[in-house]
Amino acid sequence: MAKPASKLVIVTEKVLLKKIAKIIDESGATGYTAVDAGGQGSRNVRSTGHPSVSDHYSNVKIEVLTESRDMAMKISDEIATQFFDDYSGIAYICEAEVLSAHKFCGPDGC
Amino acid sequence: MAKPASKLVIVTEKVLLKKIAKIIDESGATGYTAVDAGGQGSRNVRSTGHPSVSDHYSNVKIEVLTESRDMAMKISDEIATQFFDDYSGIAYICEAEVLSAHKFCGPDGC
Amino acid sequence: MAKPASKLVIVTEKVLLKKIAKIIDESGATGYTAVDAGGQGSRNVRSTGHPSVSDHYSNVKIEVLTESRDMAMKISDEIATQFFDDYSGIAYICEAEVLSAHKFCGPDGC
Repeated sequence: MAKPASKLVIVTEKVLLKKIAKIIDESGATGYTAVDAGGQGSRNVRSTGHPSVSDHYSNVKIEVLTESRDMAMKISDEIATQFFDDYSGIAYICEAEVLSAHKFCGPDGC
Repeated sequence: MAKPASKLVIVTEKVLLKKIAKIIDESGATGYTAVDAGGQGSRNVRSTGHPSVSDHYSNVKIEVLTESRDMAMKISDEIATQFFDDYSGIAYICEAEVLSAHKFCGPDGC
Repeated sequence: MAKPASKLVIVTEKVLLKKIAKIIDESGATGYTAVDAGGQGSRNVRSTGHPSVSDHYSNVKIEVLTESRDMAMKISDEIATQFFDDYSGIAYICEAEVLSAHKFCGPDGC
């Protein structure tokens, strides 16, 4: 029943969430999870010019389960190309196995 | 010192947290971590019938470190059987190694 | 382009965040991500003597990507030695691959 998957994790500035969600959506991935995050990069500097410490939870951690490593890398490349020249961010992959996935289908069907 | 473990991750609707915590507790796992999460599944529809985008952090991401892969799969199966017909959710496993674990013992002992 | 890394995850009481951030910083790691977390350990008791259930998000989950497994273990050992006698906490490692990392350099340069 378990199905191998790549988990792509992106940690970046929260202002980018909507744009990144759009890239994920267009990639064909079936969804993503987003969590508010704080933290600090090596330079302690963000695109706003403010130190990240002072606005503690202005980052977001986005996770995407993809069927293939290729899809994860394609999404990551797209995000890095579009945003990582101007914004702090990191993208990494972990291997995972999906045990169970269910999307609720509303009263109007699927 | 490192001890292999399976990390079970469940992302589902927040209303289920208490019930899932009970299943985890009864499984013999030593604890769990819960984080508020937002995001979007492939259908953008939840059990409430509302799109997930409008109530952004009404999901929860629950992580459980289990000694064995079997325990992780048992918990996942129980949760999927009980809830994933009626609620959105996904469960997956990542391999991990526990380096250090300590549960504080109160003044009344352990 | 992908670069192997160890992801060290620490889940512990939120009051320790600043002190742990200092340890991470001094280790030479390039940054960390912190997320508010709730949950429950096997004893449902924290250093405050209160059950963890009543103050639901008073934990923090900290993630550090390190170049080597040794660096991850060194950070974990330091944290466990300093804090895990007196506070609840767990530390574990997952293997990861960094795809892309960028630290924004402000108008004053890097």
